Amino acid sequence: MNQSQYPSVLLQKAVTEISRLPGIGSRTALRLALHLLKQDVVEVDALVDSIRDFRHNVNFCKVCHNISDTDICEICSNDGRDKTTICVVENVRDVMAIEGTLQYKGVYHVLGGVISPMDGIGPSDLEINSLVERVKQGGIEEVILALSPTMEGDTTNFFIFRKLQDTGVKVTVIARGVAQNDELQYTDEVTLGRALAGRVPFKN
Amino acid sequence: MNQSQYPSVLLQKAVTEISRLPGIGSRTALRLALHLLKQDVVEVDALVDSIRDFRHNVNFCKVCHNISDTDICEICSNDGRDKTTICVVENVRDVMAIEGTLQYKGVYHVLGGVISPMDGIGPSDLEINSLVERVKQGGIEEVILALSPTMEGDTTNFFIFRKLQDTGVKVTVIARGVAQNDELQYTDEVTLGRALAGRVPFKN
Repeated sequence: MNQSQYPSVLLQKAVTEISRLPGIGSRTALRLALHLLKQDVVEVDALVDSIRDFRHNVNFCKVCHNISDTDICEICSNDGRDKTTICVVENVRDVMAIEGTLQYKGVYHVLGGVISPMDGIGPSDLEINSLVERVKQGGIEEVILALSPTMEGDTTNFFIFRKLQDTGVKVTVIARGVAQNDELQYTDEVTLGRALAGRVPFKN
Repeated sequence: MNQSQYPSVLLQKAVTEISRLPGIGSRTALRLALHLLKQDVVEVDALVDSIRDFRHNVNFCKVCHNISDTDICEICSNDGRDKTTICVVENVRDVMAIEGTLQYKGVYHVLGGVISPMDGIGPSDLEINSLVERVKQGGIEEVILALSPTMEGDTTNFFIFRKLQDTGVKVTVIARGVAQNDELQYTDEVTLGRALAGRVPFKN
């Protein structure tokens, strides 16, 4: 056994690389590597090919910057969608989450993150200028900000709001309040405070 | 958005393949795929190459069947190890665990699993015959069975014991009892019962 405790350099390299993934420690990485060892070579090749293929050939929609196999994504090229409403989100997972609600018929703009000085992400690293350009080209009535309810999300909301102020477009932000089926006693003070402050007339 | 909810077939394929890994669901797979998208192509290539390389070129020690880069592994070819004692384990993780104790100076025999009819694993799928051959070639004084303390491990222990009975080699099994720092009140009845039955004279 060499000092690195792994009996094989090949195994050690695989474990090192796999454990670079977020949330995967060296124990899990070893378990995954030994699992792959038991699989057919064909299946392991399918896994690595799919990852390589995705990373090398991934494409982004030229309009909304969502991941897409085509130059214009299926949502942006869909005539049934309301092109006058743009929902601004952080990433493709948020698009999938909102699509999952089946409540939204407008289009999207994927920023690729939020402003986060701590992580070295500034406005120029995000698709904010392209959003402003898109609004300036006209035909947009409302921009819905649907970023994470965090300090970074709030900062980004404010930055975008300022950038869009002159265009005259209506800028809205998704409602914040207590989540469906949450128990009030376990809701944090900020959320509860905002929910109280943001109360709306009761509708039946 | 296509009916599969992923905005890209490349993304969908990567997520499908990643989520085949044990313990990784489609949400985690999506998170991992989007993480890889943010990494340099070089880093992603290093990951997939290490996995492919490991799966295609992995080698097993001809003596103990542990994963090894050489025909005879570092333990089997180490003159400082006691070749008269063989510790029988399930897999490479168990070898690493026992090596970690720094208590064992013998050699190993890696079965590649335990007998598990439920999973379709019979004795012929494991390195049991090669163990018997190894003992029959002589020079072995003790075979230590260090399999998991499960029904499958017990079955395999018994099967190996029967196979080795005629060779006259001493067959031992690692001690079972309460684990170090376990609290008795939380120890399960089987473990506690076995620990009582297997009590040994007190040594200071």
